Amino acid sequence: MRMVDIIKKKRDGNKLSPEEITFLIKGYTLGNIPDSQVAAFSMAVYFRGMDSEEMASLTREMMKSGEVLDLSYIKAPKVDKHSTGGVGDKISLPLAPLVASCGIVVPMISGRALGHTGGTLDKLESIPGYRTSLSVEEFKQQLEKIGVSIIGQTEKLCPADRKMYALRDVTATVESIPLISASIMSKKLAEDIDGLVLDVKTGSGAFMKKYEDAKKLAMAMVSIGKEMGKNVKALITNMDEPLGYKIGNALEVLESVEVLRGGGPQDVRELTLALGSQMLIIGGRAESEKDARNMLLESLASGKAYDKWVEMVSSQGGDPHAILKEEFTYTEYIHFIKAQKDGYLYEYDTYKVGVGVSILGAGRERVEDKIDPKVGIILHKKVGDRVKEGEIVMEIRYNSKEKFDRAIPILEDSFILSDSKPEKKPLIFEIIE
Amino acid sequence: MRMVDIIKKKRDGNKLSPEEITFLIKGYTLGNIPDSQVAAFSMAVYFRGMDSEEMASLTREMMKSGEVLDLSYIKAPKVDKHSTGGVGDKISLPLAPLVASCGIVVPMISGRALGHTGGTLDKLESIPGYRTSLSVEEFKQQLEKIGVSIIGQTEKLCPADRKMYALRDVTATVESIPLISASIMSKKLAEDIDGLVLDVKTGSGAFMKKYEDAKKLAMAMVSIGKEMGKNVKALITNMDEPLGYKIGNALEVLESVEVLRGGGPQDVRELTLALGSQMLIIGGRAESEKDARNMLLESLASGKAYDKWVEMVSSQGGDPHAILKEEFTYTEYIHFIKAQKDGYLYEYDTYKVGVGVSILGAGRERVEDKIDPKVGIILHKKVGDRVKEGEIVMEIRYNSKEKFDRAIPILEDSFILSDSKPEKKPLIFEIIE
Repeated sequence: MRMVDIIKKKRDGNKLSPEEITFLIKGYTLGNIPDSQVAAFSMAVYFRGMDSEEMASLTREMMKSGEVLDLSYIKAPKVDKHSTGGVGDKISLPLAPLVASCGIVVPMISGRALGHTGGTLDKLESIPGYRTSLSVEEFKQQLEKIGVSIIGQTEKLCPADRKMYALRDVTATVESIPLISASIMSKKLAEDIDGLVLDVKTGSGAFMKKYEDAKKLAMAMVSIGKEMGKNVKALITNMDEPLGYKIGNALEVLESVEVLRGGGPQDVRELTLALGSQMLIIGGRAESEKDARNMLLESLASGKAYDKWVEMVSSQGGDPHAILKEEFTYTEYIHFIKAQKDGYLYEYDTYKVGVGVSILGAGRERVEDKIDPKVGIILHKKVGDRVKEGEIVMEIRYNSKEKFDRAIPILEDSFILSDSKPEKKPLIFEIIE
Repeated sequence: MRMVDIIKKKRDGNKLSPEEITFLIKGYTLGNIPDSQVAAFSMAVYFRGMDSEEMASLTREMMKSGEVLDLSYIKAPKVDKHSTGGVGDKISLPLAPLVASCGIVVPMISGRALGHTGGTLDKLESIPGYRTSLSVEEFKQQLEKIGVSIIGQTEKLCPADRKMYALRDVTATVESIPLISASIMSKKLAEDIDGLVLDVKTGSGAFMKKYEDAKKLAMAMVSIGKEMGKNVKALITNMDEPLGYKIGNALEVLESVEVLRGGGPQDVRELTLALGSQMLIIGGRAESEKDARNMLLESLASGKAYDKWVEMVSSQGGDPHAILKEEFTYTEYIHFIKAQKDGYLYEYDTYKVGVGVSILGAGRERVEDKIDPKVGIILHKKVGDRVKEGEIVMEIRYNSKEKFDRAIPILEDSFILSDSKPEKKPLIFEIIE
């Protein structure tokens, strides 16, 4: 078998066999196949696509390129969630302990801030002491003991994906639905889960700006799940405005705790319940969405969900009480962006919100940058809200004047006030299964 | 400027600026842009194509990546020919001295056997003493003195093309018309010629099997010439059967000399005259095809063409008289493939003929293989000829029984005898200018 023939086959629009995909991924991981051939191959896939079987083979091989967890010693159902990323998307934080409090084991391996979006690990690391880099042994013990853990990728997880992603990043082959799907699914399925709920975001703050692209991605990932014998559902959800009011690492932890204590912003709470319901159904803990929802609401109301959060944070070395103190989100400076006229908050350019917050220090402009966990913004208005002239629209919490100066024009330009009331879009557009 | 943005731009079907193409080729030649990015870019070009201006920019930059000849000290018109390659295609050998004998300077930088096709340099090197690797200074002096020289590429010529071609070869991006065109044209235009005649072959023995592909390639190269202010014409010619009767290095030199002495096979002679006429017209030595043809015929008849050949061969260290001795093409073994029945020679699979001859030792299976200059085949029948049972169709000259055993089934399977007479295709299909 020769790699050049595999590239040619895909270039000409033909279907690759599982053996060919194995040859490719094994060879690349071992260093027998050079970057150049995988780059040309990735571009061919960009143009020609892949069918479900090819995507499943690719996913399986990337998964098998590294360590695959064995959670067979855990008898409870194991279900995870993955989001394609958005602005203010802190859903994993309340969701994982909430679902775990209802008897589902959640072995969540998560990522860092990427581009204009935040990262679950960066958020959790704003909690003093929280360790995201548990050993596999520690992770497994914690899952057995308390049923939930959120950690970062180890070096041993899907090395083929890591290598390929770095290559795709510099060869303009990131935006390929089969490659994105296999990348996500290989990492998630290496967790040895029974099922997975995907939150595929679309809108101005999402990676998939267009609805049809989000839908294609959702369908691709669900089909990979099916091919691999896993129960996978995808929710296509709205990322035309940030989720919740708080954006920034510590600020999002705070808002997550609000939800876990039974309150929190309506959209964050609603999306948590929607994703959580699907996880309970997939895990066999509930028959219907209604039953699942009731279980989750009961867990929030009784404090069980919050207790599970405290347990998880403590178990990973974090101080759950630090979050409740004022200094957890204290910054040196605060600035208010106020409305210049009466009207409605008509629209957010959520990408700009994300970029602005990232520049403040909540994200990284270069890989080596350090995150400032406390900076961020608090929205005082969401889409559809009435706004009076002089009212605060956005509150900016920052520590660096230089960063503020660069962020402020972007943030000031990130929303539109209008005389007309916008049509409110649904939070959840569609469920793909 | 970032290479990833250039790849993305081409991937999305947009036109690249000359500055972007300069950035790409300079960066690649200097080693600042890695193979992987150029591989992804080449695949994007495979799918999206390039327009005339982009191809001209690419050609110019690849040409400028190395040494460009300066032949301005030669006042005579400088015109060259390039063929996309075929089986039995020895046309450069009679053509270059013939045209030079009519007052056109022919600075021909040529190539080696590639795949199933022979190479002009390998053919010339079958002449005892002939040096294909003159220094640039020697090449220029010879051009000034006798008006013609055929040499090989120097290391300094178009290094970007050499690097890119090696990459395309392993990344399944060879078959891209803009990339093929720029590769050919950059090397030819580095010869500092005023004009160029292209022999674009189509048929079973050509790289472009399909007529429409050959036509696209011809049009692309002519348009590059136009953009770069050069007079370029392309002839689309038939490669459905080998050219002439003799295939193999020394054998083809012999057949070339037959043409130069006023004889030779009808098709070799005809194609030489057709290409030569265009070269004389482009070079301003003749007004019409009729005039040009008469000049060429006169040169062949008078012996001027053959004298120019002798001059060229001698000047490059070769012994022009060695060709006329029997040992020039002597091989240890001869085998005859005979007709199994009466009929017509209906069709050659010219690719198979080329592969068979290459296996005998006329070409290379691996880059490091040594060529056997004397081996080859002599066709006794061409398409349309009547064949009687037991008559010789093909004569095989070989030195290695092992190679013969591998070649013979391919050669035996390389022609079809039929009761019906085939329609004879024209030798020259079309002229693109």
